[in-house]
Amino acid sequence: MQFHHHGYVSGDPRRQPVAGVGIDRPVDLPEQMDVLVVGTGPAGMITAAQLSQFPGVSTRIIERREGRLEVGHADGLQARSVETFQAFGFAERLAAEAHHVTEFAFWQPDPADPRRIARAGRAPDDPKGLSEFPHILVNQARVLDYFAAFMADAPTRMSPDFGIAYVDHEVCPGREFPVRVTLARTTGERAGEQLEVETKYLVGADGAHSRVRTAMGRTFEGHSANHAWGVLDVLADTDYPDVRVLSTIQSSAGNMMVIPREGGFLFRLYVDLGEVSQDDAGAVRNTPAEAAIAQANAVLHPYSLDVKQVAWFSVYEVGHRLADRFDDDAAEPRVFILGDACHTHSAKGGQGMNVSLQDGFNLGWKLGHVLDGRAAASLLTTYDAERKAIAKNLIDFDKAWAAAIGSKADGSAEAAAVPEHFTSTIEFRTGFRTEYPPSMAVAEGTHQALATGFPIGQRFASPRVARVADTNPVHLGHHATADGRWRVYVFADAAAPGDPGSVVASTAQWLTTSPDSPLVGLPEGVVVHDRFDLKVVYQQHHHAVEWGQVPDLFKPRVGPYALVDRGCVHATLPDEDVYALRGIDRAGVIVVVRPDQYVAAVLPLRAPEELTGFFDGLGPR
Amino acid sequence: MQFHHHGYVSGDPRRQPVAGVGIDRPVDLPEQMDVLVVGTGPAGMITAAQLSQFPGVSTRIIERREGRLEVGHADGLQARSVETFQAFGFAERLAAEAHHVTEFAFWQPDPADPRRIARAGRAPDDPKGLSEFPHILVNQARVLDYFAAFMADAPTRMSPDFGIAYVDHEVCPGREFPVRVTLARTTGERAGEQLEVETKYLVGADGAHSRVRTAMGRTFEGHSANHAWGVLDVLADTDYPDVRVLSTIQSSAGNMMVIPREGGFLFRLYVDLGEVSQDDAGAVRNTPAEAAIAQANAVLHPYSLDVKQVAWFSVYEVGHRLADRFDDDAAEPRVFILGDACHTHSAKGGQGMNVSLQDGFNLGWKLGHVLDGRAAASLLTTYDAERKAIAKNLIDFDKAWAAAIGSKADGSAEAAAVPEHFTSTIEFRTGFRTEYPPSMAVAEGTHQALATGFPIGQRFASPRVARVADTNPVHLGHHATADGRWRVYVFADAAAPGDPGSVVASTAQWLTTSPDSPLVGLPEGVVVHDRFDLKVVYQQHHHAVEWGQVPDLFKPRVGPYALVDRGCVHATLPDEDVYALRGIDRAGVIVVVRPDQYVAAVLPLRAPEELTGFFDGLGPR
Ligand SMILES: Cc1cc2nc3c(=O)[nH]c(=O)nc-3n(C[C@H](O)[C@H](O)[C@H](O)COP(=O)(O)OP(=O)(O)OC[C@H]3O[C@@H](n4cnc5c(N)ncnc54)[C@H](O)[C@@H]3O)c2cc1C
Ligand SMILES: Cc1cc2nc3c(=O)[nH]c(=O)nc-3n(C[C@H](O)[C@H](O)[C@H](O)COP(=O)(O)OP(=O)(O)OC[C@H]3O[C@@H](n4cnc5c(N)ncnc54)[C@H](O)[C@@H]3O)c2cc1C
Repeated sequence: MQFHHHGYVSGDPRRQPVAGVGIDRPVDLPEQMDVLVVGTGPAGMITAAQLSQFPGVSTRIIERREGRLEVGHADGLQARSVETFQAFGFAERLAAEAHHVTEFAFWQPDPADPRRIARAGRAPDDPKGLSEFPHILVNQARVLDYFAAFMADAPTRMSPDFGIAYVDHEVCPGREFPVRVTLARTTGERAGEQLEVETKYLVGADGAHSRVRTAMGRTFEGHSANHAWGVLDVLADTDYPDVRVLSTIQSSAGNMMVIPREGGFLFRLYVDLGEVSQDDAGAVRNTPAEAAIAQANAVLHPYSLDVKQVAWFSVYEVGHRLADRFDDDAAEPRVFILGDACHTHSAKGGQGMNVSLQDGFNLGWKLGHVLDGRAAASLLTTYDAERKAIAKNLIDFDKAWAAAIGSKADGSAEAAAVPEHFTSTIEFRTGFRTEYPPSMAVAEGTHQALATGFPIGQRFASPRVARVADTNPVHLGHHATADGRWRVYVFADAAAPGDPGSVVASTAQWLTTSPDSPLVGLPEGVVVHDRFDLKVVYQQHHHAVEWGQVPDLFKPRVGPYALVDRGCVHATLPDEDVYALRGIDRAGVIVVVRPDQYVAAVLPLRAPEELTGFFDGLGPR
Repeated sequence: MQFHHHGYVSGDPRRQPVAGVGIDRPVDLPEQMDVLVVGTGPAGMITAAQLSQFPGVSTRIIERREGRLEVGHADGLQARSVETFQAFGFAERLAAEAHHVTEFAFWQPDPADPRRIARAGRAPDDPKGLSEFPHILVNQARVLDYFAAFMADAPTRMSPDFGIAYVDHEVCPGREFPVRVTLARTTGERAGEQLEVETKYLVGADGAHSRVRTAMGRTFEGHSANHAWGVLDVLADTDYPDVRVLSTIQSSAGNMMVIPREGGFLFRLYVDLGEVSQDDAGAVRNTPAEAAIAQANAVLHPYSLDVKQVAWFSVYEVGHRLADRFDDDAAEPRVFILGDACHTHSAKGGQGMNVSLQDGFNLGWKLGHVLDGRAAASLLTTYDAERKAIAKNLIDFDKAWAAAIGSKADGSAEAAAVPEHFTSTIEFRTGFRTEYPPSMAVAEGTHQALATGFPIGQRFASPRVARVADTNPVHLGHHATADGRWRVYVFADAAAPGDPGSVVASTAQWLTTSPDSPLVGLPEGVVVHDRFDLKVVYQQHHHAVEWGQVPDLFKPRVGPYALVDRGCVHATLPDEDVYALRGIDRAGVIVVVRPDQYVAAVLPLRAPEELTGFFDGLGPR
C-alpha cells in the first residue's frame, strides 16, 4: 500500500486524497453526468468502484432499493474474484470473514440401502494450486459493502443513490450527453416522482429482469423452461457430517446442495424443486420454506435437520439465457448491459456473482479511459466482443454441470460422472479459463513464446519477486491496484544494471526520449506514472542490483514533493526464479497488462517500438 | 472468525453483540467503576481492549489529550506484537499498511576513506523463520486506532474518555471501591474542573513521567544520565541507497538509525545527540529540527538528504530506568503501573511499544478474571512477578545493544560486533524470549518432556493442523481470540475416535462428568465454553476422523439456538505432523494456554486430575 506521498496522512491510509469531481460532489443526483450505472449488484458496484478512481469522470450509481442489500443472493466467490478484490484492497479482510473451501464432497444413495445417502467421494477444491487466492463463500451483501467502502474512500468520494429506479431511456446521437434517462423515486415523501437526467454512457446492471435491456430492444433467449431452487440460509442443528463441506447430494428423494457459509454456523441449502413448466404461473414461487425444509430432510435421510433460524429464503427460478448483444450499437455503443441483465444460469455452478464482477471490471476501465481521453471510443466495442463469448461458455459449462448433478441418482454413467466432471472443470470454476481474443486491447500472440507463462488474453498470474529497495519478497501482481493504469512489466536481459550492454538501459532510454515512445508526448500536466505503472525485474539477486545504476524510468517521481517511488525495481528470488517458472526469455521481455489484470501483449525487450504499435492502436496518448 | 451463532448478522461481523455493561454504558465518566485505566498509549489501550471483552466488568480509560494520537512516538512492532494483534483481529489489516522488515543493513566508515560511509554488512531480520508473523514498522497511532476500533465493537462498546487527566489517588482498604482517584478536565469549557471517582483497580499506563507511579511512592531508578535522540519522521529526497532498509550508521560524524516506514515514502531518522549531562537543564530538548537534519547530512556523507516535509520531530530523551515494583502492594495490589510508567529504555532496540503491549496483555485478563469471580485476587500478584523480570532483561539487552551501535566507529571490537550482536539477539528482538517462572498461573515443568515444542511459560507457538469439519488447514493458535478464555488443547493418543481404547474418550468422559473435573460445578448459568476453549487434535488424517465418534466435549453448543461449534476438532496434516514437529508424546498430552497466549501447563492425557490441580490453584471455578 502506497501513501504519504501527498504529504503525511495521520488516519486510515485507505482513504485516498479527494480530487477532481470528488471535491464538490453533489449530494443529490445531478442532471448531467458522464456515466449512470443502474443497479448496486456486483456488476454495478464494481463498475462504479473502478470509475471512482477516475477523478475526471463523474459517475453516479442508482438503486431502486432504499438501502444496502441486507441478506441473501449469491455467495460463491472463485479465486479470480478474490484476486480482483485484492486490487480493490479488501481481499484479505473479506477472506478473513468468509468460509474457505478446500474440499468438495459427493453424496449418493448408499448402494447397500438406496433410501439412505452415503458419501460417494471427495475431491480437493483446487488440486493444482492454481491460485494464491482462496475459494470462499460469503454473503453477496458483504462484497457490496466492501465496494461501497472503497468508493467512499476514493478520490471521487462516491456513494450509491438509493431509492431511485430506472424507468426508460432514449439515445439521441450527436449530443454531448446523448442518453436521456427517465428515473423515478421509489422511497420517501417524493416516491413516484419522475426525474429526467442526461448521461454520456448508461450502464444497465439491473439484474435478470433488466428494464435497460428491454428498453434497448435486446432479446434474452435461452432454454424455454426455468429451473427452480428453494434457497435457504439457515442456522440449524444437524447430524449430517459434511454440513461444513461444500457438497452435492443426489438422493432417491431428490437433489440438494449444501453450502457452508461464513462464521462457522450458517449454511445454505439449494433444494432442487425441478423444472418449472410454462403454465406454472408462479406457483413454484409460492413454495413455503417449511416445504423446502421438509424436502431437505427427505433428501438427507438417514440424517436430519432441525432448523432454528431461517436467515433468508427464496425460490430462485432461473433459466439459461443470453442477450443477443451486450450493448446498444456495434459501432458506437452508448448503453451497456452487464451481469444477470445479459446472461443467467443456474446457481449450482456458483458462477453468477463472479462472472458479473468480471463484466464490470472489463467495462469500468474502458469507460474511464475513453472519458478521460486516453483511448478512442471504439475501445468500448471490445466489451461486447470479449464478454459475450465468456457468457456463452459459461452457459455451456453450467448446462453440463447442472445436468450432471441434477441427474437422477440411478447409478447412471451421468450420475457417476459428477466427481470427475468436478475435477476436470477446475480452471473454469476458479475463473481462470477466460481468454480474450486479439483486438485493439489484446495484441496478437506473435511473441507469446518469449513468456509462455503469461498467456496473452488471460489474466496475469502474479509471480513472486524480490523488491530491491526494501528487500521484501513480493507478489509482483499484487501491487497493481484498481487504479485504471496500464502495467508495463519489463523483465530484464541478463546484464546487471550499470552493465554497458544492458538492453533494459537502452530500452529505457528509448522509452524515455524517443518521440515515437508511447510514454512521450503525453498531454500537458500528465506524467508517465499517471498512465503507466512501469516495473522492472532483473535476473540477479537483489544484493546485486545497485540502486544508483537502475534507469530513472523505474524511479518515477510522484506527488507534490516529487518523491521517488522505490517500489518499481525488482530482482529474482534465489529459490523462486520467475524466468524459469514462467518461461521468460532471458534476452528480456516486456509484458503489458491491462487495468483489469489481463495480459495484453508480450513483446521483445529489444523492440520497444512494438509497444508504440500496441498503444497507438488504442487511440490518443 | 465465528459469528451468526446469536442469530444472523447482516453487517460487519467484527461488531460483536452488545452485552452486560455495554448495554447502557454511560457516555460520561461515572463515579464508580471496576477498573480505571490512565493513559491511551499502547499499554493502556491493550489493557482496556482486553477488558472490553468482559461484559460483567465496567472499565473506563482516560486520556489527558483531547483526542487520538495523531503522529509520532514509537513505530517498531516485533512478530510477537503482531501475533498479539491477531488475537485482537487486526494483524492482517495493520500489516497490510505497514512496512515489512526482512533485512537489516549496517553502515560504517569506508576503510578506504573514513569520511565516507559504506555498507559494512547485511543480515536477514529473522533468519530462523521464528514466526509466521512479520516484523513491521508503522506509526504507533495506527496501533492505537485499531485497539480503539476493537473496543468500540466489543460487547461493552468502550471508547476512551479524552480530555481527562489523572491527578492523584488514595487507597482506602476495606471498601468495595477502595481506590479514590482525583481527576481533572483538561479541555472544553470545564477545563481545570476536578472530579472524584472510585474504582476497584487503578491502572497507571501514563508513560515515563507517570503521576500514578509518583503517587504510589514507587522509585524509578537507573542510569543517572539520559541519552538524547533527534527523531524525525520525514518525506525526503535522498541518494542513500538503504533508505528503505532498517539500517544503523556509525560514521565519523556520529551515529544514526534509518527506519523505513509505512506507505513506501516516509522514513524515520534517529539522530544520536549523545548523553545528556545532569546540568543540561533541558537545552538538548531545544535542538531545532534543522540542526538534526544538518547532523543527518553529515552522518550520511557522501550521500545527502533533502527534506521536503517533517511529519514529526521530537527530541527523545530517555534513560534506562526501572520502578522498584509494578504494583502498590505485594499481597493485595490495587494499583498497577505498566509500560513506560515502570520501565524506560532507548529507542534503538525498538522495544518500547512491544514490551508495553505485553504488560497490558498480561494484566488485562487477570483483572477480568478476578473481577468476574473466576480467579482469586492473589492472581494479580503475578503481574509484578512476571513483568518486572522481563523489564529488567530488556534493559540489560538494550544497554548492550545501545553500547554497540552507539560506539565510536573506530574499528574497535565493540563496533565491529554490531552485526553479530544483531543476529545473536534475534529471539529477543522478535519478542519470543519471554519465559514466565512457575506461579499460580504457570505450572511446574514436571511434564515438559511430553511436549518439548511447547515450553511452559513461553508464548504458545501456533502449529498448523487440519480442521476436521471443513477440511481447512488452520493455525491452531490463530483461533484463540482475545476473549479472556483459557485454552485447553488436547493432543490425542494414537487411537482413532470411536476406538474403544481411546484415551481422549475416557479423559473427555472424566472431564465432562467427574465432580473433581475443573469443568464441572461452574456457577449457575455458566457453561464450559464460556470459560474454556477446548480443542482436540487427532493423530489421524482428517478423513479418518469420524465426526459422530468425537466426544461431545469437543462439540460445544453455543448461543441462543444451542448450535454446535464445529471448530474444535482437528486432525494432523499429512505433510506437517504436529506431533513430530513439536515433540508431542503420542500417548496424548494436554497443553493449557493462558488467555494472553502463554503456555501454562503440559500434562499427560491420562491424568486429567492434574488439570484440576492446576485450575484449583487459581481459585474459584
Ligand atoms: C432474489 C435473488 C436471489 C438470488 N439467489 C442466488 C443464489 O441463490 N445463488 C446464486 O448464485 N445467485 C443468486 N442470485 C443471482 C446472483 O445474485 C447474481 O448472479 C448476481 O448478483 C448478478 O449480479 P448483477 O449485479 O448482475 O445483478 P443483481 O445482483 O441482481 O443486481 C441488480 C440490482 O439492480 C437493482 N435494480 C433492478 N432493477 C432496477 C431499476 N429499474 N432501477 C434501479 N435499480 C434496479 C436491483 O435492486 C439490484 O440491486 C440471486 C439473485 C436474486 C435477485
Ligand atoms: C514524545 C514521545 C516520543 C517517543 N518517541 C519514541 C521513539 O521515537 N521510539 C520509541 O521506540 N519509543 C518512543 N517513545 C516511547 C514509546 O512511545 C513508548 O515506549 C510506548 O508508547 C510506551 O507505551 P505506554 O502506553 O507505556 O506509554 P505512552 O505511549 O507514553 O502513553 C502514555 C499516555 O498516557 C497519557 N497521560 C500521561 N499522563 C497522564 C495523566 N496524568 N492523565 C491522563 N493521561 C495521561 C499520555 O498522554 C499518553 O497518551 C516516545 C514516547 C513519547 C511520549
